[in-house]
Amino acid sequence: MNVDDTTQSLNKDVQKHIDRINELITNGDFQDSPDTLYEPIRYILNTGGKRLRPLLTLFGCYLFSGETENALMPGIGIELFHNFTLIHDDIMDNAPLRRGQETVHRKWNQNVAILSGDTILFKAYHYLMQVNEPLIKDVIMLFNECAIDVCEGQQFDMDFENRERVSEEEYLKMIRLKTAAVLGFSLQLGALIGGANVENTEALKNFGINIGLGFQLKDDLLDVFGDFGKFGKQVGGDIIANKKTYLLIKAMELANAEQNKKLQGWLHGDLSNEEKVKRVTQLYKELHIRQLTEQKISEFFEIALTYLNKIDCPEHRKEELADFSSSLIEREN
Amino acid sequence: MNVDDTTQSLNKDVQKHIDRINELITNGDFQDSPDTLYEPIRYILNTGGKRLRPLLTLFGCYLFSGETENALMPGIGIELFHNFTLIHDDIMDNAPLRRGQETVHRKWNQNVAILSGDTILFKAYHYLMQVNEPLIKDVIMLFNECAIDVCEGQQFDMDFENRERVSEEEYLKMIRLKTAAVLGFSLQLGALIGGANVENTEALKNFGINIGLGFQLKDDLLDVFGDFGKFGKQVGGDIIANKKTYLLIKAMELANAEQNKKLQGWLHGDLSNEEKVKRVTQLYKELHIRQLTEQKISEFFEIALTYLNKIDCPEHRKEELADFSSSLIEREN
Repeated sequence: MNVDDTTQSLNKDVQKHIDRINELITNGDFQDSPDTLYEPIRYILNTGGKRLRPLLTLFGCYLFSGETENALMPGIGIELFHNFTLIHDDIMDNAPLRRGQETVHRKWNQNVAILSGDTILFKAYHYLMQVNEPLIKDVIMLFNECAIDVCEGQQFDMDFENRERVSEEEYLKMIRLKTAAVLGFSLQLGALIGGANVENTEALKNFGINIGLGFQLKDDLLDVFGDFGKFGKQVGGDIIANKKTYLLIKAMELANAEQNKKLQGWLHGDLSNEEKVKRVTQLYKELHIRQLTEQKISEFFEIALTYLNKIDCPEHRKEELADFSSSLIEREN
Repeated sequence: MNVDDTTQSLNKDVQKHIDRINELITNGDFQDSPDTLYEPIRYILNTGGKRLRPLLTLFGCYLFSGETENALMPGIGIELFHNFTLIHDDIMDNAPLRRGQETVHRKWNQNVAILSGDTILFKAYHYLMQVNEPLIKDVIMLFNECAIDVCEGQQFDMDFENRERVSEEEYLKMIRLKTAAVLGFSLQLGALIGGANVENTEALKNFGINIGLGFQLKDDLLDVFGDFGKFGKQVGGDIIANKKTYLLIKAMELANAEQNKKLQGWLHGDLSNEEKVKRVTQLYKELHIRQLTEQKISEFFEIALTYLNKIDCPEHRKEELADFSSSLIEREN
């Protein structure tokens, strides 16, 4: 079905699609034994989450075909992959909370978290393969590449924690691998399913990567300036862990000698977590880091739109995707 | 090429095939950055290993086609998967040594081990997909199922450590999932690549599963009665960890009340590791556990042979596979 009914709207119906995704996940194939393996999987899959990645896959498919049904199962495959990365990353970051609830390795233990993470990943491949057979090879190949990007990005991220200085360029490369690549792939997968040609698929992937870069910078912002009740993570967690976020990197770049000396003292001293977060945040305010970051986010959004403009598909669908993407970047949680 | 040259032999040339596999692994695609991610991958892939799984894939292919070339890359895919499971299992088991060398999580740290394990897995899919396109769907689907079996088996194994009693039946189900399924899949994959029909493929898989069951019982035996220099793991490691191996399960089943009381005391008491291993081993000897286990291994081998007999392919190739498999079960390391 390739209708161009301008009364049709994916964006307006987003909640309906999220409900459908949640229903398919809840009724999914995660009931086997042993229960010690599958209970943590059901737990993390039902702790909410924005279901952003499968929504992007639906959008990618919708742009070119006007329908979303064929994109549902593979899109859920990416959501499963995303949850695999969350479980393993939370072990590595020693994170206590995720989406306002205990992380898997805290609620159970680390071994359960490693193994249930691995299991979700195999389930992810199972869902991803539910595309027309001629697409399977490309889908799995592109997914493998994307997944390796994510691992490399996570390793760079951990390596950065042990370094004094990280350049803006290095940081942007890292988040491109760790976060943006998956958003790009989510859309690319939808485009393939929707029958897009190579140029359109590539342009949509690049749109997604730039949205992803903005999305991660927003995440960095929310870690400091977010509202715990909405954000569901420990506020200031990145500061406590000395994470080299965009905010910290810009602050180091812009601070004068005296400010930098103080900053290093707070990062490597023995302040309480609360005091450390307070002082670093105060410095961010003095250096207008928030405004700078918001400006950078806007730049990525503009680049994303130039890619979207190149894509050959009904205009109103592109507008919907632009609106949806802008809501991601303007989110408060 | 589907010749039936009876002077041809895979078994005689096994070392040549191992060298080829090692060469392909050494020159494989594990050189990207960051080095902190790829160095542990190159390390584990070059710590030796019997390359048993890819050899089985070569054998599966050889049975039906007389050639092995097309099975090399996908077979290496299973070897990569196997190394993924080793890295993650060694974290979970807190194992210090593997193949006589430090485990990845000890040589580096746990985070490096989680993430380099994940990365090897994505590389495994990349290699597995290097089959003729019409086979990709089946190969990836069957592999996913096998990988989920392995995760379930590993979880059962960990669950058993917290239980007082495990039945022989439960134990055999666990090792079927954790170990035997992969050996079955290794052969099945080769058969698919070699062009076998459904019945032959299925029979060869079942041959492999039964060889795998015997192989794991041999592993249990070697943990206690092996020679450290050859085995490359801590001797008695299973006893120290209270692992419910076939040996321990049979010992609990056959011990009289007094012996069982002593055994429980050693398992849950505060003996030194050395003393614990010594006493439990002595009880195994009194109860003839070694002979019993060897007898069970022979039974699995016999069952395996009944499956092999059903397979329609040149007899001398089947004999080679039988000889090769028998050497696995009679191994001393």
